[in-house]
Amino acid sequence: MRIAYQGEPGAYSEAAALRFNANADPVPRPSFDDVFRAVAQGEATHGILPIENTIGGSIHRNYDLLLEHELPIVAEVKQPIVHHLIVREGTRLEDVRKVYSHPQGLAQCERFLRTLDGVEMVPTYDTAGSAKMIKEQDLAACAAIASERAADVFGLTILKSGVQDFADNFTRFLIVSRDPAPLGTPDKTTIVFTVSNGPGALFKALSVFALRDIDLAKLESRPIPDKPFEYLFYADVAANRNDLRCARALMHLAEFAPSLRTLGSYQAWKEDSGV
Amino acid sequence: MRIAYQGEPGAYSEAAALRFNANADPVPRPSFDDVFRAVAQGEATHGILPIENTIGGSIHRNYDLLLEHELPIVAEVKQPIVHHLIVREGTRLEDVRKVYSHPQGLAQCERFLRTLDGVEMVPTYDTAGSAKMIKEQDLAACAAIASERAADVFGLTILKSGVQDFADNFTRFLIVSRDPAPLGTPDKTTIVFTVSNGPGALFKALSVFALRDIDLAKLESRPIPDKPFEYLFYADVAANRNDLRCARALMHLAEFAPSLRTLGSYQAWKEDSGV
Repeated sequence: MRIAYQGEPGAYSEAAALRFNANADPVPRPSFDDVFRAVAQGEATHGILPIENTIGGSIHRNYDLLLEHELPIVAEVKQPIVHHLIVREGTRLEDVRKVYSHPQGLAQCERFLRTLDGVEMVPTYDTAGSAKMIKEQDLAACAAIASERAADVFGLTILKSGVQDFADNFTRFLIVSRDPAPLGTPDKTTIVFTVSNGPGALFKALSVFALRDIDLAKLESRPIPDKPFEYLFYADVAANRNDLRCARALMHLAEFAPSLRTLGSYQAWKEDSGV
Repeated sequence: MRIAYQGEPGAYSEAAALRFNANADPVPRPSFDDVFRAVAQGEATHGILPIENTIGGSIHRNYDLLLEHELPIVAEVKQPIVHHLIVREGTRLEDVRKVYSHPQGLAQCERFLRTLDGVEMVPTYDTAGSAKMIKEQDLAACAAIASERAADVFGLTILKSGVQDFADNFTRFLIVSRDPAPLGTPDKTTIVFTVSNGPGALFKALSVFALRDIDLAKLESRPIPDKPFEYLFYADVAANRNDLRCARALMHLAEFAPSLRTLGSYQAWKEDSGV
């Protein structure tokens, strides 16, 4: 498996790829868009995308990209997130004037960062990329919020470990592929649909699952760009699309939803999942 | 009205404050948190917060802050967003090497920005703040994505106007205050609730509105930080909380929702709203 991910070596996405398959070959790409393109063009067999963090919430850009591209979801991975304050060797806490990280990295350590006086927070595109920058530009008065592996990869020092505000910090990743065959036994299905206007439209949509005792693991709304204040709904349904009950629920929804698309059926992450 | 907003003069939040009340005194603050604090501590009578953009979606940080702070929502404003590529006088398009803006500003102009070759996108905390930086540091090879007013305020030039990807680009703002009296005739109520686990829990919650023909304008889920993969739901209900039908629906929801809080009843924005 060649798994494309967004970021630099040491990124949490790379760790998630290796958690799914310890023998995978992780392929770094600068943006989420580039990850989808790498898979579509065959530079990688799979792509891994963060979709939701327990603190920061959904990564909406990837919901949008799942729609734009035609790559089915074939697996999911949950990766624990442990952030560290990482510096060049010799930098002390009182020397730090700027902290670089991805906005989600900064947000997830907000309480800790508030205890630092007169320190500027600088959002960047990547946690591991922030560590790389400190190394390459030899920044003595700066720190990055990133993973332990990022410190290792770039030969930096962990000044303070476990600086995230909540211990239970996980990111859920989706794995996409050109080959729609799920990597495991599917028991979860991600769909995207629209509802017509008017009272009870979403209620009616959810009824197709509730009336069949099918659980919804997640429901997410996203604006439709050229229709102000109308929404697409993304739902994670706790069933395989090929189970008769789920297949009937989806057919029922298609009867009245103006649009409905299944993005993939795959195995919900368990600690012994992965290949 | 002294209305606190996040950003620099020329920010879209400032424009929204003046759209609501042309005679308001806008009070700039560096962060959303500082806006809430300014209102809580009486430095401003009101605070204005972006909550949703038609392209970028919800501004989740402000949903979280509405819960943390105890300031009721008393009004809403919809502000058209028109982005321009702004430079120092004399900079030509072929000179531009970096474009600065808020990540949402960059995302909303993605198609346009992709047409610029070899140009780096640099996310910042603020659209107008990016324009300010170009002025203050006299950056000749840089541009900002920001409003016309930001160009005016900082004496910069619009190199290319209307560079957003979609013409119908609006941001919806909420106005909070210590005084819970709504600024208008309330016909919309924002609530936040949790549901118990198990199939049909959200369906049951929505039934209290659907069975009474009350429309939901919006439903948004947010993770609960210390409970991985459990969610808070934010809903905009198209009714005044004091209408008997709506009051009964909320009492019905409170019967089985583990938690329910009303964040405010206020007047949905119409072009002749405002004070």
